[in-house]
Amino acid sequence: MRILVDGQPRESVGALDRGLHYGDGLFETLAVRHGRLRFLDWHLERLAKGMRRLGFPPPDLDGLRTELAGAAGEGAGAVKLIVTRGIGPRGYRPPREARPTRIVIAYDAPGVELPAKGLRVGWCRVRLGRNPALAGLKHTSRLEQVLARAEWDDGHMDEGLMLDTEGRVISATQANVFARIGSRWVTPSLDGCGVAGVMRRAFREWLKGQGNPAEERPVAAAELAEATALVLTNALIGAQAVRELAGRGLEPDPDVAAFGGWLERL
Amino acid sequence: MRILVDGQPRESVGALDRGLHYGDGLFETLAVRHGRLRFLDWHLERLAKGMRRLGFPPPDLDGLRTELAGAAGEGAGAVKLIVTRGIGPRGYRPPREARPTRIVIAYDAPGVELPAKGLRVGWCRVRLGRNPALAGLKHTSRLEQVLARAEWDDGHMDEGLMLDTEGRVISATQANVFARIGSRWVTPSLDGCGVAGVMRRAFREWLKGQGNPAEERPVAAAELAEATALVLTNALIGAQAVRELAGRGLEPDPDVAAFGGWLERL
Repeated sequence: MRILVDGQPRESVGALDRGLHYGDGLFETLAVRHGRLRFLDWHLERLAKGMRRLGFPPPDLDGLRTELAGAAGEGAGAVKLIVTRGIGPRGYRPPREARPTRIVIAYDAPGVELPAKGLRVGWCRVRLGRNPALAGLKHTSRLEQVLARAEWDDGHMDEGLMLDTEGRVISATQANVFARIGSRWVTPSLDGCGVAGVMRRAFREWLKGQGNPAEERPVAAAELAEATALVLTNALIGAQAVRELAGRGLEPDPDVAAFGGWLERL
Repeated sequence: MRILVDGQPRESVGALDRGLHYGDGLFETLAVRHGRLRFLDWHLERLAKGMRRLGFPPPDLDGLRTELAGAAGEGAGAVKLIVTRGIGPRGYRPPREARPTRIVIAYDAPGVELPAKGLRVGWCRVRLGRNPALAGLKHTSRLEQVLARAEWDDGHMDEGLMLDTEGRVISATQANVFARIGSRWVTPSLDGCGVAGVMRRAFREWLKGQGNPAEERPVAAAELAEATALVLTNALIGAQAVRELAGRGLEPDPDVAAFGGWLERL
């Protein structure tokens, strides 16, 4: 593992950083394959959009690109980038001229263990609060996910689906979700909460290219009982079939393997 | 300003700290008056409760008490304490044996400027998402407050009231709120969101002692049009009268001055 803080090899961050005080930051987790950062442009695009929505000064995207590429290893791994609003005076009020802190953490292994036969998924009790101002962003105020992920630690479940406070399906704790209902793929809208994942975008683009675009809309929990297939996506796992949802068996969908093959050839 | 990290004079925190990655922490801001930490027991009680709810190991309260007292200056000031879940492996999942990080920041001045004639308060556009799992906690996933506080920066407004996503009044960006409606004080319930402030508790206890306990219940935004007085509370400002709410003038209530006098004599 290698850590860069503001471009320098350093293992620590100022104790007055607003990322630490208020979760006032954003992050990206990028997969490294054959020494290349997968979907780098889309990650940077989402980051820049998030920084704009939070009122951060715009990032130096060329500089970031160079720094991330330099941090990525030669083979397969992962790079995490955190950008906070930086050090600020006391109080929630953002400094007028924020100087964001950037933290790059590079791992020489992807660090994900995937069951060969597909994921076993259950339901989390903790729900996601709705807040359009933050919806879609991969920000660092993530206590809801932390509490949800703390709900299981044994071997009978790989991921947990989360509902929002109105009872709609939003995502898994660290992945987006697609359900095949009837002949169509459906993925929850993320205008109230949830993270608009880069792999969610990739799977949607790919499905569109196949002539079977996913429908983005609110999804009630009960609808998943009718789903014939369920898929979780994130930057590191790609798209993974769910083989069991709360005890009910599901079949792998051919789209999952086809997308996986496409992803490998990228 | 003096900073202690895990009891040592140090100005930085590990770049892998979960407080930085996920807002996985809690904080307390304590007022120092005449060299004493005001309501120290209540702050520690709230912290311990928050740590329990987030699944942190229990704090060493005696050690914390000593450390905070040592950090407080001789006169008037403030001490901020942050406790994060500490350094952990990748992912939201909390480590089984977390070793929390504690950060103590001591200021030699209270650092609050209060207008002599009472506060001018408006409404924030950003709303608070509802999440019972986090409601009441003074946690460090605070992007909602950051965005709300970024809505104004000129001289015509001192604080902003926040609604939750269902349109109920919850609090100001960094203070709790009490409204006198009819003959009674009313304060919003915090079972869906908001921070259960220590000064809120103090004002409630004091009101109870006066034989006029505040009613804690959901408060619709429209009800504040009927309020004859409005008060904001937090650990540093005590209880402050609002002199103007969105352009409407309000009278100071005698309870505010009486409580302020009681607070001074503590």
